[in-house]
Formats: sequence, C-alpha cells, structure tokens
Amino acid sequence: INEFPSDDEYHPSQGWRPQPHHLSKEQLWERIREEAQYDAASEPALASNLYSTILAHNSMEKTMSFLLANKLANPTMLGMQLMRLIQQAYDDDPGLMEAALADLQAVYDRDPACDKYSQAMLYFKGFQAVQCHRVAHWLWSKGRKPLALAFQSRMSEAFHVDIHPAAQIGRGILIDHATGVVIGETAVVGDNVSMLHHVTLGGSGTERGKRHPTIDHGVLLGAGVTVLGPITVGAGSKVGAGSVVVNDIPCHAVAVGVPARIIKRDLIKEPVK
Amino acid sequence: INEFPSDDEYHPSQGWRPQPHHLSKEQLWERIREEAQYDAASEPALASNLYSTILAHNSMEKTMSFLLANKLANPTMLGMQLMRLIQQAYDDDPGLMEAALADLQAVYDRDPACDKYSQAMLYFKGFQAVQCHRVAHWLWSKGRKPLALAFQSRMSEAFHVDIHPAAQIGRGILIDHATGVVIGETAVVGDNVSMLHHVTLGGSGTERGKRHPTIDHGVLLGAGVTVLGPITVGAGSKVGAGSVVVNDIPCHAVAVGVPARIIKRDLIKEPVK
Amino acid sequence: INEFPSDDEYHPSQGWRPQPHHLSKEQLWERIREEAQYDAASEPALASNLYSTILAHNSMEKTMSFLLANKLANPTMLGMQLMRLIQQAYDDDPGLMEAALADLQAVYDRDPACDKYSQAMLYFKGFQAVQCHRVAHWLWSKGRKPLALAFQSRMSEAFHVDIHPAAQIGRGILIDHATGVVIGETAVVGDNVSMLHHVTLGGSGTERGKRHPTIDHGVLLGAGVTVLGPITVGAGSKVGAGSVVVNDIPCHAVAVGVPARIIKRDLIKEPVK
Repeated sequence: INEFPSDDEYHPSQGWRPQPHHLSKEQLWERIREEAQYDAASEPALASNLYSTILAHNSMEKTMSFLLANKLANPTMLGMQLMRLIQQAYDDDPGLMEAALADLQAVYDRDPACDKYSQAMLYFKGFQAVQCHRVAHWLWSKGRKPLALAFQSRMSEAFHVDIHPAAQIGRGILIDHATGVVIGETAVVGDNVSMLHHVTLGGSGTERGKRHPTIDHGVLLGAGVTVLGPITVGAGSKVGAGSVVVNDIPCHAVAVGVPARIIKRDLIKEPVK
Repeated sequence: INEFPSDDEYHPSQGWRPQPHHLSKEQLWERIREEAQYDAASEPALASNLYSTILAHNSMEKTMSFLLANKLANPTMLGMQLMRLIQQAYDDDPGLMEAALADLQAVYDRDPACDKYSQAMLYFKGFQAVQCHRVAHWLWSKGRKPLALAFQSRMSEAFHVDIHPAAQIGRGILIDHATGVVIGETAVVGDNVSMLHHVTLGGSGTERGKRHPTIDHGVLLGAGVTVLGPITVGAGSKVGAGSVVVNDIPCHAVAVGVPARIIKRDLIKEPVK
Repeated sequence: INEFPSDDEYHPSQGWRPQPHHLSKEQLWERIREEAQYDAASEPALASNLYSTILAHNSMEKTMSFLLANKLANPTMLGMQLMRLIQQAYDDDPGLMEAALADLQAVYDRDPACDKYSQAMLYFKGFQAVQCHRVAHWLWSKGRKPLALAFQSRMSEAFHVDIHPAAQIGRGILIDHATGVVIGETAVVGDNVSMLHHVTLGGSGTERGKRHPTIDHGVLLGAGVTVLGPITVGAGSKVGAGSVVVNDIPCHAVAVGVPARIIKRDLIKEPVK
C-alpha cells in the first residue's frame, strides 16, 4: 500500500520533512517582521496591534507567548501569568516551536486564501488553537492536568475548538476555519494532516482506554467529517465533507458518505497536488 | 414498547431518579470544595481562580451565580448585576439547583473524560450553557422576555450554544463539547438526555405554534444530529452521528443516516451500559 | 425555468424589492427606539445597555457603529477606533445601511422566533456578522486588505461566523443561529437568501480563481448544508439540512442528501409561503 512513485520523491503521507521552499526559523521570523512592518505602515488602525504583538518582541517564542496569552486571558486567568507559562513551555521543549513553524508553513502552503505568514499567525484561530493545544499537552505530560484542562476549556471558549490535552498531534497541521472541531482524549493525529471546520475525532462508548481515532500522515478530512471510535484513517487518504467514518480507511483512499464508503484507491499513483 | 427488564430495575428512560451512588447536595458541595483545595495547592496558576469561584463562597448557589455571571458579563451587562439576578432565580425556585446537581452528576457519570465534579462545573461549556438556560427559562416564565432573550444571546456568544429561553429541558442533561448546539423555542427535552456538539432541535416551516421536536427521557443524540419539526424521539433511543431525523423515532430504537432510518429496536432488552 | 405565476406577482427569487409591509428607514429607526424605550422601562437590568446602544444615538448608522464596534473590540483593537471606522464606511457607501435594513426586515419577516426589530439587531449574531462583513467587504474593495482580514478574524472569534471579506453578499439575508457558518473568498450570495447555522460555502481544490459556490436569489439552505466548489444553486431552490451539494442545482428545486439529489422541481408554481 505504501509504495511511493519513486524512492527519492517525497509525499506528505511519509510524515513531515522540510521542503526546499520552506523557510528556516530565522527566515520565517524575519519575514513575519517585514510583513508586520509593511502592514503597520500602510494601515494605521493595525499599527498598535502589530507593534505590541510582533514588532516589540525579539523572537518567535516571545511573539507566540504574547499572542496566545492575549487570546486565553480572562478575568480569572491573567495574561501576564499565561505569557510566562507559555514562554516556559517553549524554553523547556524546543519541539513545540518547531511544530508551530511547521504548522505555519502548512497553512501558508495549503490554504489558497492565505498569502502572508503573519496572517496565519495573527488571524487563524485553527493555527492558534493547535499552538495552545501543544502547550496544554506539554502541561499534561508534566502531570499538571488541572491546568491543562483549564487551557482546554479556554481554547474551547476562545477558538471554538475542543482538543483534549492528552490527544497526540503531529507537525504540519492545518485546521481551516476551525469552528466546532472536537478531538478526543485518545486520538492520534499524524503529520501533514489537514482538516476543515466541524471535524470530530470522537469516542465510541463510555469505556476508558483507546476509544478515539488515529489519523495517519497526510490525511485530508473535509468540512463536518465525523470519525468515531478507535479506528484508523490510513496515510494519504481523503474523506469527503459531511462523511461519518466508523470503520478503518486504508492508505491513499477516498471515502465519502454516511456511513463513509471507499470510492477510490491508490491515490498515491496520481500526481501530488 | 415500554416494558422494562423488571419492575424494580431502574432504566434512564424512566426519567431522572437519584441513584445509590449519587451524592447528596451537601456531599457534592463538600466534594467540589475538596477538589478545589487540592488543585489550588498543587497548581498555583489556578489558585486565584479556584479561590474566587469556589472557595470564597459558602454554597453551590453562590458559586454557580458567580461562575455564570462571570461567563455572561460584558461591557453592557455587568457581572455584579447578573450575579444578583442568578442568585435571585436560585432563591425563588430551588428546582433550578436540583436540576443543576442532576446535570453535574450526569456529566460525571456519562463522560469518560471527566473525573472530577469541579472539572464539569468549571470547564464544560455544555454544563454551563444548560444552567444559564435554566435561569433564562425562569426569566421567561416570569414574563421577563426581553431579559431572557438577552441571556440567550450572551449564551450563544459565550458558549456557542443557542437555546431559546422557552424551550423545556429536563434533569440529568449532558451536552458534551457543546459547540454549535441549537434548541428551538417549542422543543421539549426529557430527563437523562445526552447530546453531543452540533446537535440541532430545529423547526420546520415558518408557522408559529409547536414546530420543534420532543426528545423523550434517556435519549442519546450523536454529534451533528439534526432533528427537525414537531416530531418525537422516543424514550431510550439513540441516533447516530450526522443523522437527519424528520420522522418520529419509537422508544428504545437506534436510528442512523440522512434521512435517519431505524436499524435496531427493543434496546431495552439489552443490558444497560 | 424562471416563469413566474404572473407578471406583476413578486417572488423572492427575483431579488430584493421593498414590499408594501416593509418599513422605511425612518419608520424602522422610530420603531427600534420605541421598542428600546418600552423594554428599558419594563426591565431595569437592560436599561443601561439599551440606552448606550440605541437611545443615546440619533441615527441607525450611529447605533450600528456603536453596536458592532462593541462586539469586535478587544485589547488590541480599540472600540472607539472601530466605531469611527464603521461610521466612515456607512458615510462613504449608503448602500451598506440600505442592505442592513433589508437584512433586518428579512430576519423579522422570516424568523418566527423574532417579533421585534431591536431583538434581531441587538441579539442575533447572524445579523451582526453579516453587517460586519459588509464593512469588511468595503475595506477590501478600498484595497485595505490587512484590516479587512483583521475584521474577518474578529468576526470569527466573536460570532463564530467566518466570511471572507472578498465574498459578495446580497440584500435581505437571514443567517439563523449562525454558529459555524463559513463562506469562502470567491462565493457569491444573491438577495433574499436564508441559511441556517453550520452552512458552508466552501472551495474545492487548492487552485486560486473562482472556487466557491454561487447561491442565487431566494435560496434556502438548511442547517449544516455544505456546498462545495464553483457550482450554482439556482434561484428559489431549497436544500435540506445536512446535505452535501457538489453539483449545480437548478432554479426552484428541492435537493436533499449526501450527496444531494433533487427530489422536487418547479417549486415556483406552488403558492409562496
């Protein structure tokens, strides 16, 4: 099933791998600052926001900590405290920022309505929700479960995206539009996964243990797709909008319908779009 | 259809009834305070929130009034005023708190991702939305319709759950994840009903009068289920994710699909899970 | 297909046209003030909100600017600045307010749960989202794209409705309940269109250029309908809840299902409801 067109040709279903056109961390940070400077000059109404969120900081980590803390802050969770906490997570685990940069590149590459990196970072709640999840998952892995659950709750309020902090999420993730996305406690999402709004990776039954889906590398889940139970959607597959998936989907297949049925196989042999 | 396994055996489709393992109001309040004390000690970043929301108060009513008022407050609806109003509702109708406690027990019992009562109370927007609705419904029943509609609007903004204040909702309700739930003006929801996010109990046509569904005791509505028109989903039935229901469903049946068709009957004869 | 019952009889699928029972701008503004005065007198808890939002202003434009700015304001986008900007849009293009009034009339006419104009204006996030979009679209058309995108982002946060500022939207629009609505960059929505929550007008593929649907005059899209790609739903047609539309729908037809199939044609010959 996993036979690739050729040994040296890369396919997203193989997992995240930097591509020749991808920017390095330094290039990305430089580009984002340039974009912010340009927009602040051309649009005074945005200048103060762009200055305080991007131009006042000297690293992606500080900018992201400021940005996410501002989104999550409320009268009982102070912005300053959240900012320190998120900065601490980035300091402790550099993998969090590597994954954030991969996500930023993914949004830029895959969303035709996005033509600036700063646009994805500042304005896309799917991108912001995934970065908050990465911090919540870090808290969860450190045994700080009550705070991780508080993060989940604030994310659900602020971004309308409900990801359990225990869920495992890969790199290069695009959650487009994002409203209504739900990802359960034992779900596993691979690299290069794209999903639209209203996607549910839900549990079946009320048992504990693995009860949510595994979504392999390079999968595309259309708007409103519901995947239920400890099943697997294989690498490189696509599920059409509105489908309900209750059985395994093989790699490189297309599935649609309620319940989903497979309408195409061996996508891998087609040219990558 | 409503033949139960035995006369003295309880089934959720009979309506809400306290169970042997359920906590009394005093026990529940004591438990919630213990949970809050434990979490505040272990996680300083949460201490101020837990103190101001739970530990500073001497009753469930005061805690819930503070909590809900904080969620609904905005620059034109002051938190202090909302808190007094919600407290007034709890004083006037003790049934509101009884129902809230039943809901709390329902979340704890039915959601495998919930292992603390305080978690459901503090962090689950479905639980919070239902409690706001109970207050809005109380306002509506007192003839204070403009304020009830203002509550509905704030709930829709804050929780992404749109329940018309005239809708009648029973006890022991679980709305899991909750984003996108819509419950119309003439809908009736029985006891022990569980529903996932994106569930719609919608109207058909533009006539006034009864135009939304009735959901009987003990029904489970999966993610994204749409039930349309003045039809009934019978007690103990289950409707699969993504289904569109436009005809009556009998008791103790399973229905799935667009439009939903019945794939199983007489669930009642199976052991309760 | 577009044969109307008689030459002088009006049908919503012909586009927006003032009807005999519609209020003029002056009458509407007068009515909204009367409603606000009545509610403020009967419900003290609402008086300050109604005063600051409606009664303190001397025009619909000022009231709408104040209302929308309050919804969109956050720590990095100041309310006063937003209010001036929205007022500027209304001054520059009177068509924006004409369209807002048509939308207000549409909500009042078509939503059986709405019996006051002020209710739709103050409390319906679908109405408010459409008015924010009209301002964002004005910004986009003036070449102020970064600010238009900032508006889109705040709308998605505040109303859970994601409309790209380039999308073209007609007059007399009802977006009921609204949570989760997504309308893409190259979508075109005609006059008198009604849609429920969770409706998606989405793109297919990752090409640039026209990639989102066109929805003609007088169409009704039920809850959760997904329309994908550069296809057309013809004037006066209805699409049932939960349907996924991937092919053109002719005028005056009814379509349902995943994927949607046409179950009725020539609706135009039936009496208008």
